[in-house]
Amino acid sequence: MPELGLPHALMTSISAPRPATAVLLAAGLGTRMKSSRPKAMQSLGGRPMLAHLLANAAEVFDRLVVVIGPDMEEVAELAAPYPVVVQQERLGTAHAALQAESWFGDGDVAVLYADNPLISAETLNSLLEERRKPDVGLALLAMRPAEPARYGRVVAQDGNVKRIVEWADATSEERAIDLCNAGVLCADAVDFRRWLHNVRNDNAKGEYYLTDVVDLAVADNVQVRAVEAAEDELRGVNSRAELAQAEAALQTRLRNKAMENGVTLVAPETVFLSADTQIEADVLIEPNVFFGPGVTVQSGAVIRAFSHLEGCEVQANAIIGPYARIREGTTIGTSARVGNFVELKATTLGEGSKANHLTYLGNAEIGSRTNIGAGTITCNYDGMFKHTSTIGDKAFIGSDSILVAPVSIGDNALVAAGSVITQNVPDDALAFGRAQQVNKAEMGRLFKERLQAKKENG
Amino acid sequence: MPELGLPHALMTSISAPRPATAVLLAAGLGTRMKSSRPKAMQSLGGRPMLAHLLANAAEVFDRLVVVIGPDMEEVAELAAPYPVVVQQERLGTAHAALQAESWFGDGDVAVLYADNPLISAETLNSLLEERRKPDVGLALLAMRPAEPARYGRVVAQDGNVKRIVEWADATSEERAIDLCNAGVLCADAVDFRRWLHNVRNDNAKGEYYLTDVVDLAVADNVQVRAVEAAEDELRGVNSRAELAQAEAALQTRLRNKAMENGVTLVAPETVFLSADTQIEADVLIEPNVFFGPGVTVQSGAVIRAFSHLEGCEVQANAIIGPYARIREGTTIGTSARVGNFVELKATTLGEGSKANHLTYLGNAEIGSRTNIGAGTITCNYDGMFKHTSTIGDKAFIGSDSILVAPVSIGDNALVAAGSVITQNVPDDALAFGRAQQVNKAEMGRLFKERLQAKKENG
Amino acid sequence: MPELGLPHALMTSISAPRPATAVLLAAGLGTRMKSSRPKAMQSLGGRPMLAHLLANAAEVFDRLVVVIGPDMEEVAELAAPYPVVVQQERLGTAHAALQAESWFGDGDVAVLYADNPLISAETLNSLLEERRKPDVGLALLAMRPAEPARYGRVVAQDGNVKRIVEWADATSEERAIDLCNAGVLCADAVDFRRWLHNVRNDNAKGEYYLTDVVDLAVADNVQVRAVEAAEDELRGVNSRAELAQAEAALQTRLRNKAMENGVTLVAPETVFLSADTQIEADVLIEPNVFFGPGVTVQSGAVIRAFSHLEGCEVQANAIIGPYARIREGTTIGTSARVGNFVELKATTLGEGSKANHLTYLGNAEIGSRTNIGAGTITCNYDGMFKHTSTIGDKAFIGSDSILVAPVSIGDNALVAAGSVITQNVPDDALAFGRAQQVNKAEMGRLFKERLQAKKENG
Repeated sequence: MPELGLPHALMTSISAPRPATAVLLAAGLGTRMKSSRPKAMQSLGGRPMLAHLLANAAEVFDRLVVVIGPDMEEVAELAAPYPVVVQQERLGTAHAALQAESWFGDGDVAVLYADNPLISAETLNSLLEERRKPDVGLALLAMRPAEPARYGRVVAQDGNVKRIVEWADATSEERAIDLCNAGVLCADAVDFRRWLHNVRNDNAKGEYYLTDVVDLAVADNVQVRAVEAAEDELRGVNSRAELAQAEAALQTRLRNKAMENGVTLVAPETVFLSADTQIEADVLIEPNVFFGPGVTVQSGAVIRAFSHLEGCEVQANAIIGPYARIREGTTIGTSARVGNFVELKATTLGEGSKANHLTYLGNAEIGSRTNIGAGTITCNYDGMFKHTSTIGDKAFIGSDSILVAPVSIGDNALVAAGSVITQNVPDDALAFGRAQQVNKAEMGRLFKERLQAKKENG
Repeated sequence: MPELGLPHALMTSISAPRPATAVLLAAGLGTRMKSSRPKAMQSLGGRPMLAHLLANAAEVFDRLVVVIGPDMEEVAELAAPYPVVVQQERLGTAHAALQAESWFGDGDVAVLYADNPLISAETLNSLLEERRKPDVGLALLAMRPAEPARYGRVVAQDGNVKRIVEWADATSEERAIDLCNAGVLCADAVDFRRWLHNVRNDNAKGEYYLTDVVDLAVADNVQVRAVEAAEDELRGVNSRAELAQAEAALQTRLRNKAMENGVTLVAPETVFLSADTQIEADVLIEPNVFFGPGVTVQSGAVIRAFSHLEGCEVQANAIIGPYARIREGTTIGTSARVGNFVELKATTLGEGSKANHLTYLGNAEIGSRTNIGAGTITCNYDGMFKHTSTIGDKAFIGSDSILVAPVSIGDNALVAAGSVITQNVPDDALAFGRAQQVNKAEMGRLFKERLQAKKENG
Repeated sequence: MPELGLPHALMTSISAPRPATAVLLAAGLGTRMKSSRPKAMQSLGGRPMLAHLLANAAEVFDRLVVVIGPDMEEVAELAAPYPVVVQQERLGTAHAALQAESWFGDGDVAVLYADNPLISAETLNSLLEERRKPDVGLALLAMRPAEPARYGRVVAQDGNVKRIVEWADATSEERAIDLCNAGVLCADAVDFRRWLHNVRNDNAKGEYYLTDVVDLAVADNVQVRAVEAAEDELRGVNSRAELAQAEAALQTRLRNKAMENGVTLVAPETVFLSADTQIEADVLIEPNVFFGPGVTVQSGAVIRAFSHLEGCEVQANAIIGPYARIREGTTIGTSARVGNFVELKATTLGEGSKANHLTYLGNAEIGSRTNIGAGTITCNYDGMFKHTSTIGDKAFIGSDSILVAPVSIGDNALVAAGSVITQNVPDDALAFGRAQQVNKAEMGRLFKERLQAKKENG
């Protein structure tokens, strides 16, 4: 017991501003995922699970510290600039949390999990507020899952948590309790340190379990409170199937938010969004559209079926797709059109310009009201370097043209269909680069007859 | 009270043929949709909500009249040739219905809503028949939604409606009623006019509510009857999320109907149909196919995954896709094949002809048993006009050819791969239009080495 | 009754090894499917229903025999090498089973249905084991469907089946039974023969029903046992809608199995697998991917959105898509990349090679670390024959090149963009096959002005 026989939390002024620290446990391996990557790096909505947790925790906590396992440079990089500590041995969650002890500071400390990535800032805030109520020494998060079977149950009395009972140890009465432990705890730093040091490993696996802190808190006569949140926020992600479930929950959240903002999703369940996708009102999105990270779409734009966008900006009233792929570093101007089987990468397509069919534009700067014919290809890569193609305003690039970059096509210039363009084309000029046609009478039929004869002769 | 103390409905002969008029309220703004377009123009199954309602109502009612808001030319155009009246001020649904008073005529009048677009002709017919039963002065539509919370409840006794109670005003007993008001009413024209004029606006919003007609009818001692229909028909569409729900309900209906007709949908939930899509028996449709408006598919055809069809006819035993885009004005002949990354627009592809890879055919007339090589492009657009390409029977267009329209290729003609065709090719002829190949020994390696050196020197 | 007054099953030694025969009834027409193809040929997970049943039954039974209808050569071919008997007249399921009588042999016989295709080997094994318990003369399969309405009910007492009551004949008490008959029976061959011969056709349709065997077995005083299995295994497939349901059940099974094996499915419900798809751990599959039959994917590969694979092998760490179509006979080497709007057929793409944009490679052998430029097309078809293109290691094929097969490109060779390659290119050589560019000043503008004038003059 602490000095004065009172937990530290109960001695501190409630009104004083207190810092809050979040300890993010991210040392988990992907064992049940059967993955060679750390669990924290598994992706949801186009970003790693840990990145979701970092973003939400940063809205509520003053300090963040991440506990990783050995040889997890990838996780440490993602965690930067937040401090990282390494849990060298896998001795349980309480042991993991203790590795971050030197970062606890004053105030309150919460322990979160990288495999609980969809927990909202609101829920984290409620947890912190509950902890800071008078007489409350420990707050924890709990949920009422649709299928509670394998979770530990929260045994409470008169609104206070008495203990957490693991499912394996629970009586049938306790198993009937539907309030389940999510594992997330929040306590005053001084108390938390003490309790963590007192957790013992006299169990089957010889591990130090964070859950044991609850018993220690109850033994210290502080009140322990459960803060409820939705299962979709608190569900742990341990297997590929649970990862898919979490992705589905996140997608539902993102789709509903888009629709509330005035976006039409013809078939919401077929549109995949990233956590950072930004779509303005009165955008129409047809079925089967995929948004990778870093996309913004302005009002009035239409994204047609089977389109795939990443790292790009689609300006107002542009029409994209079907089957358009817009890649990183691309800007589609106002009222521009990108049609089917068209790929754009690191390209600017100016206002009102069109690239409607079977085209690859890479590292291209294209002015306004220019028409890019079907089958146009920019040769932006020589096997070693990338080069830029520049096309002016109101130019017309004939079908199946090849622009061998670096090359520049002027305003109002016209490139004849089927040309290979290796030199710059001045403003207003016409560029030709193709062979003359020759017709040979009867030769078509003769060629066929020869083939036919060959076939018949075996 | 009317003359003789009897509602008009009860004085008219039941057996006499009576005209029926539907008043379609379509003045709603897209406020909750966060849209700048009128709500009636929001699309379901590829057509505006109001178009669905017009089509179904026209099957049952003799006269239709549409009430729109100011500056809704788009809605008026859609409503044509039906008459349109403008509700200049937004004073409630009863006020909206009254704007159409001069079109009520004799017989029965029903008031419908553009944001209740999926109501079936069967249901409208039941409503009208119920109204025409002896002693029935008013018939309304009701449903038992899965989540009835926000709807007004239908309070009935001995099969007769006593009143509609809004959810906000309902007692807990009334809230337990699961029969909910869908808002649609049907009455004799003379009664309806009188009741509408007697509706008052002494409520919080100062609006004239159509629902108040129920009280007036009860006060007139006519029987008021509720006709039940499925929630999927009667659910109001006020938000993007509700629009998506209605789309899902419509899609389920369309998919089930297709399957009942002998169409195989491998994964029905991934196939998007338009309200007018016509598919014959023994057509196979793979996952992720999108049908825009105006598509017919004949028996034995196969539509492979990721295909996108609009305004086209696919004849018997043709094979389409994967990744085929067939656009407006296109006919795919019997046993023809359209392969991946191929777009056809305003094109006829004759019986047994093939266009299997990476091709754009626009404004093309293609005969039978012709082979269009990979990468073929019709240059149908010169920046101002569209031109036609004509190709005969049993022709062979070599890969990556360009047909600069207007141009014509004869029967049995052969175009060498990589040719730019600007002049007509006679029957049986062979056309060449490409440069000769030159090999330069060692130059490939030297070019690479130069690039490598450049890279190393920065 | 048989000799000695005892069913044959009860006289045979339990411990002796007994052969087991499965009779697969596959004579059903596609009437309710509205299909011209036999029901057994309808496809699930990329293979006919009967093929699923054959595969699972072959794991459990020593002998298989298939009963088909007249003119079902297609089914007989699929059934090979298993023997086939033809039911010439449609006189019911008992009559169908009897056609196979000469194949019953000794031991046990089970009667299965081609339209119950998803029954597992485990369930079939349980059925056989149940039948072989002492005193059990007949075992049948039963399920507890979510909506049991139209199924016959299994009336049991003290664990023994007393009779099967058809829904039409059932009392309301019997209809309350939720255990339903799946129609699959298993008995000793001698008993089964006798019972089948004793089934009568004194019913409305004048047919011989297999279900009547249950009454005959009960009358023989053998115990009849029901073996329960999941509805997803036992549900009959009679309509297109039921076919789609069965497909959905199969897909869920395949997706879950893949995730358990360590495959990431970002959106499992959008990934379509074939029954034979093999995917190793740590493969990432984005939304909307279609796997036709015969695909294997090795560890570390990424299959991006909207890809379509059939009959191919994707080796470790390769990246495929989005919008890649990999067809039969294709091998994608380790760390190779196939990008958007690219089709590969009967092609080998070597280790680390790339084909990233708008390309068709058919019958091509490509070495390692070679770059195939955007828009490259192999002309592998001359209208009659297919020819091979061979490309060496570290070659560079410039964009929009055409390789007219048969043709060979050497190691380190370079093909200039836009070339038509008709002759072999030696190692280290540079090949050109394109016209020189000519610029004509002002002609672009003049051409446009002419068009504009033409337009204005109508």
